[in-house]
Amino acid sequence: MRVLILGGDGYLGWPTALRFSAGGHEVSVLDNFIRRRWVEGVGSDSLTPIADLQTRIAAWSELSGNEIASYVGSVADGEFLDRVLAETRPEAVIHYGQQASAPYSMASREQAVETQYGNVIGNLNLLFAIRDHVPDCHLVKLGTMGEYGQPNIDIEEGYIRIEHKGRSDTLPFPKLPASLYHCSKVHDSTNIHFACRTWGLRATDLNQGVVYGVETEETCDDERLITRFDYDEVFGTVLNRFCLQAVIGHPLTVYGSGGQTRGFLNIRDTLRCIELAVENPAERGEFRVFNQFTEQFSVIDLAHLVKHSAEHLGYSVEIQHLDNPRVEKEEHYYNAIHTKLLDLGLQPTLLGEELVESMIHAIERHKGRAIEGAIDPRTRWRPAEPELDTVPVDDGQPDLALQD
Amino acid sequence: MRVLILGGDGYLGWPTALRFSAGGHEVSVLDNFIRRRWVEGVGSDSLTPIADLQTRIAAWSELSGNEIASYVGSVADGEFLDRVLAETRPEAVIHYGQQASAPYSMASREQAVETQYGNVIGNLNLLFAIRDHVPDCHLVKLGTMGEYGQPNIDIEEGYIRIEHKGRSDTLPFPKLPASLYHCSKVHDSTNIHFACRTWGLRATDLNQGVVYGVETEETCDDERLITRFDYDEVFGTVLNRFCLQAVIGHPLTVYGSGGQTRGFLNIRDTLRCIELAVENPAERGEFRVFNQFTEQFSVIDLAHLVKHSAEHLGYSVEIQHLDNPRVEKEEHYYNAIHTKLLDLGLQPTLLGEELVESMIHAIERHKGRAIEGAIDPRTRWRPAEPELDTVPVDDGQPDLALQD
Repeated sequence: MRVLILGGDGYLGWPTALRFSAGGHEVSVLDNFIRRRWVEGVGSDSLTPIADLQTRIAAWSELSGNEIASYVGSVADGEFLDRVLAETRPEAVIHYGQQASAPYSMASREQAVETQYGNVIGNLNLLFAIRDHVPDCHLVKLGTMGEYGQPNIDIEEGYIRIEHKGRSDTLPFPKLPASLYHCSKVHDSTNIHFACRTWGLRATDLNQGVVYGVETEETCDDERLITRFDYDEVFGTVLNRFCLQAVIGHPLTVYGSGGQTRGFLNIRDTLRCIELAVENPAERGEFRVFNQFTEQFSVIDLAHLVKHSAEHLGYSVEIQHLDNPRVEKEEHYYNAIHTKLLDLGLQPTLLGEELVESMIHAIERHKGRAIEGAIDPRTRWRPAEPELDTVPVDDGQPDLALQD
Repeated sequence: MRVLILGGDGYLGWPTALRFSAGGHEVSVLDNFIRRRWVEGVGSDSLTPIADLQTRIAAWSELSGNEIASYVGSVADGEFLDRVLAETRPEAVIHYGQQASAPYSMASREQAVETQYGNVIGNLNLLFAIRDHVPDCHLVKLGTMGEYGQPNIDIEEGYIRIEHKGRSDTLPFPKLPASLYHCSKVHDSTNIHFACRTWGLRATDLNQGVVYGVETEETCDDERLITRFDYDEVFGTVLNRFCLQAVIGHPLTVYGSGGQTRGFLNIRDTLRCIELAVENPAERGEFRVFNQFTEQFSVIDLAHLVKHSAEHLGYSVEIQHLDNPRVEKEEHYYNAIHTKLLDLGLQPTLLGEELVESMIHAIERHKGRAIEGAIDPRTRWRPAEPELDTVPVDDGQPDLALQD
């Protein structure tokens, strides 16, 4: 199958490219390397020493004999995207090519605008490019569980049957996104759903939980194939950050009480979920939504798990509760349905001490590269402003989330 | 009260400015006149010969003795918006400054991107400008009933109480927007709601029905105060277009069967609704949603009403059913709740033959300016493309709408 991966140089994009190439598919990747620059811009760097895209592709070709085509440019450039789709004629497009950090989107108006512009317009360009060049192509779009927020009811997979005043309908599940980044993902879902209803496109929206992990089957084969690993306050995800903190002797940074509960999954399961979605495409006109995670944990549970695992390996670990820089509920109901990928055959890699220990070992190899100053939270959801001290009113509506 | 009106040169923005100025408020308007250029760009022009903004403002000052301040620029320019809010320090901002045509947004990728960029980023800039300069200011944002689409349940005002698996929550009403323009308004609602939850802003989202009418109390006072009136396929709304068609002897252009039902309101009621929202502001942290219309009609009902009214005045009127250029249900359940503005004191101006006849008389004065070639629909929701012939699957989910 011809598969095009947008954001194919990233944490998940690159391992996805390797997986599909290993599976015998004809893989193209598109990236503009802006994630590398964003991370440098916040004073951090990938813990793992990642090769540049051409070196990665050459190494993979050397090892596997498989070629990966590459296109350098931005999804915000609609004409560029048109040319790439016309040339590669993908049967599936996997879209990771977005700004994916909640704190980054909350730091300033400029960054909020950059996030919503790049994500929403990039995705809109993609919808037009698919419509005009490969209307039968299956769009596999990465969404996030953070689109839903923390409603007081079970979170269903994209839609909910509503009985109301004697009538009923199945409608999009209401969203309470957790940051301006998460808002951008809700916007994308709205646009993609519209394109499916109106133009008959086929799409799968994967509302992914928080991903953790360092390696996948293919990235272990050669040091040049390793994927990026972020642990800083802006681009790092919580479990990855805790593992790095344990290794370098930094207290585990729990925001507030740590009662925030979310869905999590291993990076290896991310790849399997993407494979399952691509192997079982949506129908023409269908906007399909899967909740892509395997287990729910609270932040404090994860902190304790990492502490125990690291102490078992001889580390001394402290858990630190910081003032929560985000606006989110710390104690709340949370139960998200996630059966559709299991129904397609997903066999979850469950989290436990052994898995955390293997992450710690993988991190140890690169611990000398850690930039400790990039870890503690500085990005606040509410700017310090006297007039805001007495507000906002808590309307009982949940807000937001772990970075993902 | 200090009131800032974004899009203050437009069909509704200008009469709103006059209304608030007449009411003794300190009014500023902001516009970049792009609506004038857009309408010219589709080969049309306002039926009414509108004066330029400075002439309008001077005429109003001459007649009323009241000054209206004006700022020329785009809401997409965040720094400009910051300066205007810092200078005017509004207690209420009324935001009409958007691309408001569904067909315009569907004509090409460029126009879709222009619509979503201008609307979403402009509104996002406004949220930051309010947060940083006038956090107590009440944002009164024009949304549209077309955000909801045509669900098979009653449409509530912004939120719906959902009972689900033994638990319950009040959540945002699910949306099925009718065009990429309507999608942009859904995105705005999502962003504003987030800003209220997170930053404690106060906002009222007015999901407005299709507006009709030529004149308001203040615009009648002097020819220089008249507001624009669009009737073309891109920027005209359905009842305004029908009235113009009756006057110039063009068949009334009903799309498909005409069974599409929507909410409508008179331009005079728009002004009263805005006044009611401003006089009764949302609380800090509150994202309040009103459905702003007074009556529901189907398109074919309106065509018959216009036909009868015009024939009563001596016109001969033909109703023409055209292939529907949109993707929308032509027969569907539709019942939208709209009690909140009535509860605040709105006294609706109801539509009837007399009102249509008065519109026809107002139109007659300018009928020589009509550009007949701009009337018939050319903008199709689905581009002609062989591969799309067999699709899309009808998933039972409603789409689309009348232009608003």
